[in-house]
Amino acid sequence: MSLAEPILTELRRIAGPAQVLTQTEDLLPYAFDGTAGHHQMPEAVVFPQTTGQVSAIVKLAGKNRLPIVTRGTGTGLSGGSVPVPSGLVVCLAKMDRILELDRKNLTLRAEAGATTQAIADAAQDANLFYPPDPGSMRISTIGGNVAENSGGLRGLKYGVTRNYVMGLEVVLASGEAIWLGNKCVKDVAGFSLKDLFIGSEGTLGIVTQVLLRLIPLPAAKRTMLAVFDRMDQAAETVSAIIAAHIIPCTLEFLDRTTIACVEDYAHIGLPLDCDAILLMETDGHAAVVAEEADRMAAICRQNGSREVRVARDEQESVQLASARRTAFSALARIGPTTILEDATVPRSELAPMVRFIQATAQKHRLRIGTFGHMGDGNLHPTVLTNERDREEMERVEEAFAEIFAEAIRLGGTITGEHGVGLAKKGILPQSVGRESLEVMRQLRRTLDPLGILNPGKMFDASEPRP
Amino acid sequence: MSLAEPILTELRRIAGPAQVLTQTEDLLPYAFDGTAGHHQMPEAVVFPQTTGQVSAIVKLAGKNRLPIVTRGTGTGLSGGSVPVPSGLVVCLAKMDRILELDRKNLTLRAEAGATTQAIADAAQDANLFYPPDPGSMRISTIGGNVAENSGGLRGLKYGVTRNYVMGLEVVLASGEAIWLGNKCVKDVAGFSLKDLFIGSEGTLGIVTQVLLRLIPLPAAKRTMLAVFDRMDQAAETVSAIIAAHIIPCTLEFLDRTTIACVEDYAHIGLPLDCDAILLMETDGHAAVVAEEADRMAAICRQNGSREVRVARDEQESVQLASARRTAFSALARIGPTTILEDATVPRSELAPMVRFIQATAQKHRLRIGTFGHMGDGNLHPTVLTNERDREEMERVEEAFAEIFAEAIRLGGTITGEHGVGLAKKGILPQSVGRESLEVMRQLRRTLDPLGILNPGKMFDASEPRP
Repeated sequence: MSLAEPILTELRRIAGPAQVLTQTEDLLPYAFDGTAGHHQMPEAVVFPQTTGQVSAIVKLAGKNRLPIVTRGTGTGLSGGSVPVPSGLVVCLAKMDRILELDRKNLTLRAEAGATTQAIADAAQDANLFYPPDPGSMRISTIGGNVAENSGGLRGLKYGVTRNYVMGLEVVLASGEAIWLGNKCVKDVAGFSLKDLFIGSEGTLGIVTQVLLRLIPLPAAKRTMLAVFDRMDQAAETVSAIIAAHIIPCTLEFLDRTTIACVEDYAHIGLPLDCDAILLMETDGHAAVVAEEADRMAAICRQNGSREVRVARDEQESVQLASARRTAFSALARIGPTTILEDATVPRSELAPMVRFIQATAQKHRLRIGTFGHMGDGNLHPTVLTNERDREEMERVEEAFAEIFAEAIRLGGTITGEHGVGLAKKGILPQSVGRESLEVMRQLRRTLDPLGILNPGKMFDASEPRP
Repeated sequence: MSLAEPILTELRRIAGPAQVLTQTEDLLPYAFDGTAGHHQMPEAVVFPQTTGQVSAIVKLAGKNRLPIVTRGTGTGLSGGSVPVPSGLVVCLAKMDRILELDRKNLTLRAEAGATTQAIADAAQDANLFYPPDPGSMRISTIGGNVAENSGGLRGLKYGVTRNYVMGLEVVLASGEAIWLGNKCVKDVAGFSLKDLFIGSEGTLGIVTQVLLRLIPLPAAKRTMLAVFDRMDQAAETVSAIIAAHIIPCTLEFLDRTTIACVEDYAHIGLPLDCDAILLMETDGHAAVVAEEADRMAAICRQNGSREVRVARDEQESVQLASARRTAFSALARIGPTTILEDATVPRSELAPMVRFIQATAQKHRLRIGTFGHMGDGNLHPTVLTNERDREEMERVEEAFAEIFAEAIRLGGTITGEHGVGLAKKGILPQSVGRESLEVMRQLRRTLDPLGILNPGKMFDASEPRP
């Protein structure tokens, strides 16, 4: 069943005839995102090129009670851009201009469809730095990053997307476009609406433009890799580095399963008989970097690391970092289905959490590789499975239910950087509590009373509604 | 007219008889905060000692449609804690415990009434750093800092209160207490409610507990002061420092009027024939600090500074910094009434904004000293006047209306760190736009449908209501 012809005619009038897809073969690539197990064919896909067009599309959708799903390049890992039944996909990938780089105020303004990489490159060309680096940054869009409040490898030192958003243009469910924020470092005029929209996963409005804060590019960088026989030693090392008041820009971890897959895939020369590898990077002033790198290497050895490799140059640096950068791809080629999770705990609870994941994998006879951002407690337990094997998928679900419950018990969260979307809406109440969830629901109803923006995302339909 | 006896009885039952004030002489100190021109006697003041008591008080208020104003130590500069007519003041100053300092996760948890200074001291005792340093930090409470999203002198490099809040306990208008956030560096489970409450000035809920992020204490610091014959030279120097990719922790400015008042008050030996003084501080690793200080001094001289004094030790450092720290007190002793404003513009618009303020002062025959956080565009034009001189007060109002309109025209905001409260609710629509304001109003109605939390603050009653 396709959209009614008058709606399609109107969509074509708004965005141009070539910007509306309705044929099954054209729609197929828009039926899923990066999340395993979630597929839904949309009725149509439209590519607006201006904020005015987005406004017009949202007004049309409101008039016709047509559910909208906003999408960038579909790299999300929680089903946030998977279409809803009988829905329209509004794809912002063609609104990809970088509109301004302001060297005096260190800001960059871009349309929502600009890729994270294009923004990082534009900043670097001006000798400036946009730190957030989600794994998919080469193709992910900044609008998607803002909608999900994306993290990345540099979160510990540099924070996440939210920490770099100074302003947003948002199209509300009414179709009205508003501008939030400005180039001021300080602004307390009214509620911080911008912060409410960041991370709201397209359920409160559609981000069409972003004003980002840039910082000076660090002058120097040093990469190193440390090998540990026991998981606990790696966790202790992370604690000891922080206790020594060193905040590295990257403090990543790979477990035994992940190391084996990475080595099999990338042939970096990683030892296969170790329990954990830490990948560390410090950046900043050359003198500080040299000193911190020495101290970090010493701390690794003090905590039982059997080998510490410090990159001598950029090339070796890239080679060491590739151990971590290829982790997902390396794991993904093992089984037909790869489910990448992001259970997150306070840094102090990392070792117990990793042990719990390993024990849970054994208990449910699953292959789970764990890697992730150890410095900020953001783990990626990744199960290698086959979504057609229903019996195994049931065990996967049970295992993850236990892993999330344990993360919550340890004072953590069900998602550190991927979002709730479709994948985790069932366990959001457990994570934030029913009272907070009810406040979120109220805000959602206030800002989108017709429920046309990404309906069915974030909030489970089985939850009571008024 | 006092509160009905059954309500007072219930308040005494909830908080204890000694924790409820009703006598005029006891209420007087709670009739105002740090904001000139705003006074209102409350009906009663209650001092809860636990979150449960705050909940019970809010429930009682809701049942009786009794307006509540939350208050810490009343240092606010926008009338946020000035009572509302026929209202109850809930003073959190007695909930002042520091509950936990977690060295593994670098966090500190405190009750809302703990002073900013107590928090900074507790962090420093653990060799850690809580950077936000609002001018009133010796007595201001952390709950008030969160409600106003307070800034301070270190905003440029270290950000504002929001950047350090990881979690909040909030009592909603229903009386229900919820906990938002956790010790995870990354968390994207649901909307960031915490960020909606930060800076909401007590109109959405009452903050009762705060979980703060701490960072390592910088190892070294260097303070310097530069004297300029012309305002433009100081503004150019600030731009040149940022363009050289140096982000000092402090980059403060005093104009001619302020310099004269400070010298008269503190006898620091400041030249009286100059147009502007910059106070600069760089902190971090000793090697970086030494290098940055040298580069900043050179940039000052290149931009025409006739004198650069670099502090040789901590004592001289404190002496130089006192030029800025005493600015408000030095100005305040001149006239009976001192109105401290915080018009804020993008850094690139500082020089035109300062010139505009000076021209506006002349035009309206007013004495306005301007100082402030030049590094982040946050200026404090401070008018020395007499609130009993109605004719002059009219000129003051006209002058500030023009100053705020110009700040907005230059892409700035009406308030960088003081908040809206009573003082600026009339110009909030002009600053954020009527559409954004309407969204804020909707959120306020959603979270406080009875309008009992700080009614009449932030939103002008003359605004249309549904």
